[in-house]
Amino acid sequence: MNKKEKRTELSELGEFGLIDHLTKDLKNRHKETVKGVGDDAAILDYGNKLVVATSDLLMEGIHFDLMYTPLKHLGYKAVTVNLSDVYAMNGYPRQIIISIALSAKFSLEQVEELYRGIRLACERYNVDIAGGDTTSSMTGLAINITALGEASEGSTVFRSGAVKNDIICVSGDLGASYMGLQVLEREKKIFMEDPEIKPLLEGYDYVIERQLKPEARRDVIEFLSEREVVPTSMIDISDGLSSEINHICTNSGKGCRLFAEHIPFDNETVKVAGEMNIEPLMAALNGGEDYELLFTVRPDDYKKISDVAVIKAIGHITTPEEGLNLVSPDGSVIKLSSGGWNSMGKKGK
Amino acid sequence: MNKKEKRTELSELGEFGLIDHLTKDLKNRHKETVKGVGDDAAILDYGNKLVVATSDLLMEGIHFDLMYTPLKHLGYKAVTVNLSDVYAMNGYPRQIIISIALSAKFSLEQVEELYRGIRLACERYNVDIAGGDTTSSMTGLAINITALGEASEGSTVFRSGAVKNDIICVSGDLGASYMGLQVLEREKKIFMEDPEIKPLLEGYDYVIERQLKPEARRDVIEFLSEREVVPTSMIDISDGLSSEINHICTNSGKGCRLFAEHIPFDNETVKVAGEMNIEPLMAALNGGEDYELLFTVRPDDYKKISDVAVIKAIGHITTPEEGLNLVSPDGSVIKLSSGGWNSMGKKGK
Repeated sequence: MNKKEKRTELSELGEFGLIDHLTKDLKNRHKETVKGVGDDAAILDYGNKLVVATSDLLMEGIHFDLMYTPLKHLGYKAVTVNLSDVYAMNGYPRQIIISIALSAKFSLEQVEELYRGIRLACERYNVDIAGGDTTSSMTGLAINITALGEASEGSTVFRSGAVKNDIICVSGDLGASYMGLQVLEREKKIFMEDPEIKPLLEGYDYVIERQLKPEARRDVIEFLSEREVVPTSMIDISDGLSSEINHICTNSGKGCRLFAEHIPFDNETVKVAGEMNIEPLMAALNGGEDYELLFTVRPDDYKKISDVAVIKAIGHITTPEEGLNLVSPDGSVIKLSSGGWNSMGKKGK
Repeated sequence: MNKKEKRTELSELGEFGLIDHLTKDLKNRHKETVKGVGDDAAILDYGNKLVVATSDLLMEGIHFDLMYTPLKHLGYKAVTVNLSDVYAMNGYPRQIIISIALSAKFSLEQVEELYRGIRLACERYNVDIAGGDTTSSMTGLAINITALGEASEGSTVFRSGAVKNDIICVSGDLGASYMGLQVLEREKKIFMEDPEIKPLLEGYDYVIERQLKPEARRDVIEFLSEREVVPTSMIDISDGLSSEINHICTNSGKGCRLFAEHIPFDNETVKVAGEMNIEPLMAALNGGEDYELLFTVRPDDYKKISDVAVIKAIGHITTPEEGLNLVSPDGSVIKLSSGGWNSMGKKGK
């Protein structure tokens, strides 16, 4: 490659900056491309149903560490993180297409184990494997999964539809996946220093499972449908609450007010965070990989779902002038940084 | 990873064997999955149009060598090889979704150059970029492209429909891409031994362009549609004629008789092959990456297209008992090996 040309480091832009830079003046050519670059998945209108399509590339050493990631879990996760993107459009995944690149260090049994996890996820989420391709890699493992799904016209949800006074909701609990990663990294470090010491993973089951084998929130999408609630905006939490609420507010041209005391945590997350001297709130805001759904609903619609344990109201949408605010339990207000978890090393779109 | 478990080397299966092994008992769950694993692309019925979807993962050092591959060409090729898969179903590509993993050695300008090639291909083939994702890589470049397209019911073409006496046709000419690769590898070797020697690429323009910047045969699909010919089977030539005709015959439960003297070559391919002491026929059979279309048509349909210069009849379909035969100009018959280009290092499905 040429050496003398102008060189801008990718780190100067960050991941979102790079995507924006590369796609900012793209124009769609087909009316079928209802939603392209700039959301969790593409929405394609090919007739009386909409097609939802999304794709994610996971690289060894960046998105997963085979020191502590069982291959079956990895396969499972590679599927669910994609399905999560389809659900985040209020769509229903139907098919996946898999591409895997493998170095010679992998055996058939190991690839089978990976596929076992992929197939388990497909069974659990009622999804077909509609294509599979394996190829070689010089260096480790790369997995790309494309998820395709369907949605009905009028029910797809983008990041851009939030309106002032909408209630901001989140499913499940946050920060656990990040705490699970901290436990795994700590035990890896101890193991590297002395391979005789057995990893201490007992009592960390929930946070570790959230990191290694996350689920996609089909139940939430089905529940919203049953109650006939279509969110005004929605996104899945892959990069952390701070980054995701920023996507919603920026794309909707709005501000927000989140209340720290309403952000849901599992007891184990709080316990592990205490051990590690990490604020649980920081894990929720910047940790990522929770794969919960963050969405906004009209106040009237919120009444229809307020009794559901798995959905929590954590704030509301404001005018853009007010910016992105997080209210602490003592009433003080913290401005949420717009960058979110803005690292090239973290996955997200 | 565990060391004591049974270990079967991937090389024992070969690429097709691995895919077969991993997918042999897959069952589709949705009637929309008209065509899943086992063809060039997936066909999904979501309404009154069929969706065609395909995905390919290209890894640095396996599928491309950045020593002699300009990034713009690489981007272009990453798109066209996917579109080729859509055309091979008799479909029309409409959108692509891109995932790119990059190591720190890449600059913004280089990624832009890659994207420039991607966008040029999208313009030329009238395709939308419906999703784009970049992430980090520990080691070099990985590109995954998913292509989505549409097809009408009754016009999709699988590998499995060939009938006895069908005429076997191929578009364009074969073997050029493989000869281009040989030229590039030769010049790379010379350059590695003495960087002062300038690569000698003049007079090799056609074969090098076929390797670095292949086109997908939209013209052939459009032409067949104009003449109202629906092939009985079709595949694109990514792994070599031998491998592809084997896919068609195996999936159709048939045999074939190909005539060596009818296989089309460009003059430059024959010239370069002579220089390199390679049989042009071997380049066509086992070289791959020509991205031409190989298809079968009913004898009556062949009459409708026999005047077209870009399509050549190279043989006909026989009973399975006769096997796969290649007739030499002197009348002797060579059995085509069933394995084709059966290397993990070569792309294909």
